[in-house]
Amino acid sequence: MNLLHMIPDASSCCSADSISRAKQILALIPGRATGAYSHSQGIKGLRDAIASGIASRDGFPANADDIFLTDGASPGVHLMMQLLIRNEKDGILVPIPQYPLYSASIALHGGSLVPYYLNESTGWGLEISDVKKQLEDARSRGIDVRALVVINPGNPTGQVLAEENQYDIVKFCKNEGLVLLADEVYQENIYADNKKFHSFKKIVRSLGYGEDDLPLVSYQSVSKGYYGECGKRGGYMEITGFSAPVREQIYKIASVNLCSNITGQILASLVMNPPKASDESYASYKAEKDGILASLARRAKALEIAFSKLEGITCNKAEGAMYLFPQICLPQKAIEAAKAANKAPDAFYALRLLESTGIVVVPGSGFGQVPGTWHFRCTILPQEEKIPAIISRFTVFHETFMAEYRD
Amino acid sequence: MNLLHMIPDASSCCSADSISRAKQILALIPGRATGAYSHSQGIKGLRDAIASGIASRDGFPANADDIFLTDGASPGVHLMMQLLIRNEKDGILVPIPQYPLYSASIALHGGSLVPYYLNESTGWGLEISDVKKQLEDARSRGIDVRALVVINPGNPTGQVLAEENQYDIVKFCKNEGLVLLADEVYQENIYADNKKFHSFKKIVRSLGYGEDDLPLVSYQSVSKGYYGECGKRGGYMEITGFSAPVREQIYKIASVNLCSNITGQILASLVMNPPKASDESYASYKAEKDGILASLARRAKALEIAFSKLEGITCNKAEGAMYLFPQICLPQKAIEAAKAANKAPDAFYALRLLESTGIVVVPGSGFGQVPGTWHFRCTILPQEEKIPAIISRFTVFHETFMAEYRD
Repeated sequence: MNLLHMIPDASSCCSADSISRAKQILALIPGRATGAYSHSQGIKGLRDAIASGIASRDGFPANADDIFLTDGASPGVHLMMQLLIRNEKDGILVPIPQYPLYSASIALHGGSLVPYYLNESTGWGLEISDVKKQLEDARSRGIDVRALVVINPGNPTGQVLAEENQYDIVKFCKNEGLVLLADEVYQENIYADNKKFHSFKKIVRSLGYGEDDLPLVSYQSVSKGYYGECGKRGGYMEITGFSAPVREQIYKIASVNLCSNITGQILASLVMNPPKASDESYASYKAEKDGILASLARRAKALEIAFSKLEGITCNKAEGAMYLFPQICLPQKAIEAAKAANKAPDAFYALRLLESTGIVVVPGSGFGQVPGTWHFRCTILPQEEKIPAIISRFTVFHETFMAEYRD
Repeated sequence: MNLLHMIPDASSCCSADSISRAKQILALIPGRATGAYSHSQGIKGLRDAIASGIASRDGFPANADDIFLTDGASPGVHLMMQLLIRNEKDGILVPIPQYPLYSASIALHGGSLVPYYLNESTGWGLEISDVKKQLEDARSRGIDVRALVVINPGNPTGQVLAEENQYDIVKFCKNEGLVLLADEVYQENIYADNKKFHSFKKIVRSLGYGEDDLPLVSYQSVSKGYYGECGKRGGYMEITGFSAPVREQIYKIASVNLCSNITGQILASLVMNPPKASDESYASYKAEKDGILASLARRAKALEIAFSKLEGITCNKAEGAMYLFPQICLPQKAIEAAKAANKAPDAFYALRLLESTGIVVVPGSGFGQVPGTWHFRCTILPQEEKIPAIISRFTVFHETFMAEYRD
């Protein structure tokens, strides 16, 4: 039985542009199939497509040779940490609070995390003066600080950096001879009307910096944005400003694991090249994208307002990403109860919340915070229709908790 | 337009058992979709399926909690090296010749590779006496040897270990307190009638060893066998014989990267649970599987015979895996020409072969070999109908090369 004759015509269920895109993608893959290993940087034609997507996002050229496709963004972070860290005297500047991939990767590779604190009172602003202070302090302790990690939009803090701030960061890295590791996986997740995402690649090029000025690694993922295809494990890093011998080492390490998964590679190329206005599927794509992002913005706002109303809680705006990171001023009695239970106070609060409501938040101590302050990270991802019930359960819990422990 | 109504009925092109399997798999995944992160060890229901596949392969029980799904086998190897290696005084016993993932991973994690030589004259046999000698030698140099890597069937050497040999290896590891890292990704690729694959897990259990006797990590992949879905990056490691605190550390490291890709996870569960005799698709599955493996066996035999006929080449049988690893006795003049070109003699030969014929082989120096001997690794993967042309082009090249350099 020849099953091929029985496979129905795709045009009965798919738009013309999606069919032609599928054909284009297959034509880019040697053997027109997804079952073989690819080049260790990823399939060349997909990297071309990503480079062209980056170029139209930034208004500056991008090069397929600079793209390394990865199984999500995490393996690219590990790869760079592996290269940058020789021993415990090598330091990496990391924002606090931070997504703990960075602390874990630095620990696994035996380096030193050099923390700089985001300023909660200015909406989790990144202050160069503090970064410089931490850098100098680390250097005075004999640490060779090699790179600066910036997460923009922020995780867990949800802030979007101002363009001028990004210029300062880039100049700072150039002056201090630091590699800039730019985690930009939430680049599509911007909710504040007065904020816009600018890639560090664009900022670097806008300053007129070329290949000899600043080593920059930019991370992107298919797990965030309006697509959220986390289980596919797709992502890439774009490396610019590295010398040929260093690039060779990056390639060598990438090649040890052969290649990232091809489905994830294809998705990364789609994320950077969504349907165009002239495509049949554009209207439905646009409606779905706008709908998802508008809903995320409404959820963020609703949670922010609800948290801000509660006794002892202050909450910055979620300008971007998928999180709120409210500060909670815990009563002394709660802090003592936490101590008696051998838990960090925010972990104690989060566990009590989980037990009484089923709501999961992550204690701030998992991300780092200014000592003596307590936070929790709350995603904005529950379905929108569930948000009011979550807010009311949360409010009841919080009021009961405060009544129990109020000083 | 509701496209769902337009999606054609799968039964017009797929067997009943493949449709019901797809439904079963979806039912195992929270949300019935492949787009979300999974448990960091992989989806529980898929691990259950893999454990049951292992149990029916071995005749001994297997446990879903022991399975870690990975993006191909390589990340699992890195994970264990990361745990086993603390510094350059920690050593890992690795066969020479070896698949260079092992040397690369040991180097990246800053440990010491302790080589043991496979015996070419006994068909790349693994001799415990040599392993023991290398272990003692390493220990006398202050190396803390922590694990033994065995690749069975062998890469690049293509041998299949005898069952008695496997018993000796397991006893040796137990006596010497070594972790056994068993690379079994070619377990379906057995071509010699007198050879059979036995997993180390089965050998360990057959000896009556339980959880307290021997730490064993078994690697499997969807990239080899008769399926060869390399681009999907699926695989798993099964860990047994580790204490609870060590298992916790393994889990912690696995969780840093969130999870492996879900498509690869599903394929790993299929590889360990192919269609059963009662299934509609069994006949076509069986025919395709047997056809592929029989063809690989014929290709291996044809290449082995062809290589053996050539002046200065001796070639062991490909009992399994996907490779031949012939030894080539190069004339002194060729060795001098290689030296003048600043190349290893086998690399010089392989490059000349590539330039004159387009045929790619990998020089033995990439895998390690007894000093002063030269080899190349040749896959058995070119389409069967191309093998005769490859053999004749190879033969012409070799005769010309030897005529040019014969002493």
